[in-house]
Amino acid sequence: MIDYKRLIRTIPDHPKPGILFRDITTLLGDPVGFRAAVADLVDRYREQEVAMVAGIEARGFILGGAMAERLGAGFLPIRKKGKLPFETIGHDYELEYGTDRVEIHRDAVSAGQRVLLVDDLIATGGTAVAGLTLLRKLGAQVLEACFIIELPELGGRRRLQDAGCPVHTLISYEGH
Amino acid sequence: MIDYKRLIRTIPDHPKPGILFRDITTLLGDPVGFRAAVADLVDRYREQEVAMVAGIEARGFILGGAMAERLGAGFLPIRKKGKLPFETIGHDYELEYGTDRVEIHRDAVSAGQRVLLVDDLIATGGTAVAGLTLLRKLGAQVLEACFIIELPELGGRRRLQDAGCPVHTLISYEGH
Repeated sequence: MIDYKRLIRTIPDHPKPGILFRDITTLLGDPVGFRAAVADLVDRYREQEVAMVAGIEARGFILGGAMAERLGAGFLPIRKKGKLPFETIGHDYELEYGTDRVEIHRDAVSAGQRVLLVDDLIATGGTAVAGLTLLRKLGAQVLEACFIIELPELGGRRRLQDAGCPVHTLISYEGH
Repeated sequence: MIDYKRLIRTIPDHPKPGILFRDITTLLGDPVGFRAAVADLVDRYREQEVAMVAGIEARGFILGGAMAERLGAGFLPIRKKGKLPFETIGHDYELEYGTDRVEIHRDAVSAGQRVLLVDDLIATGGTAVAGLTLLRKLGAQVLEACFIIELPELGGRRRLQDAGCPVHTLISYEGH
């Protein structure tokens, strides 16, 4: 496997002091790195008959769009509040301060459809769990949630697994 | 070519009375339609040595991510204000009421690199022209701007062409 960490930029003290921000744009901008990340993830699901890839706004759209196309699946956007034009269902989730909300179209997936949940990075997992909740509300069978980067100390993997959703990531940064 | 219009949902009176909103999520969610749209666009640029695909937030990330991966290019996000973690350059542009701003990373592209500008839909072209301006400020050679949908009466194609950027779209809706 490619050395993804070499292609990811770390920005100290962003968005606030003490945080090491993992900037994936340098990996996306590298043709070999981006293609390898898509291939490494897609290879895992090639025999899984994935019907839909659900990508989380906004960076999850980049990876999720490429994965859906390679898998021959449809793409389903999980969007922030008020961004989708048709009838939606939504789910609120806690942030450090306040709450946020994600939405999907009411007809975005059919009962029983096999769905893969995709984002670039998992931290606390709040958005991913909210997305999972929405997909299941429509009867989707969520096979797994996958990410390029994991920040394990923030507990996102455990939260998804506790909700019965397996998790797969390409790389992990201890001591974020 | 596939009948894309059959796969695009039209929502009347969204976001305001009298507007027919072209909802592309139904096309993205159709595995055959999504793959065909990516292939129809990618085929046009396969011999063009595209180094980077610049996708406009947020729906341009879905199509642009898939196109970059298929073309063996890098992906470069053109984002709304304040979303990018590293040093940026920005460009303001006019909306119907007020202004908006797009940004790219200062090191997102090198002088002379061959770049393709991608979004799902072109209306007035305000965001696309702003993105074009930013890419050129870094010395990029923007080969063309491509979109799935064009609303020709809103003049976006002409604005891009007047700025010296060719335009290609898969389908067009007269009388939006």
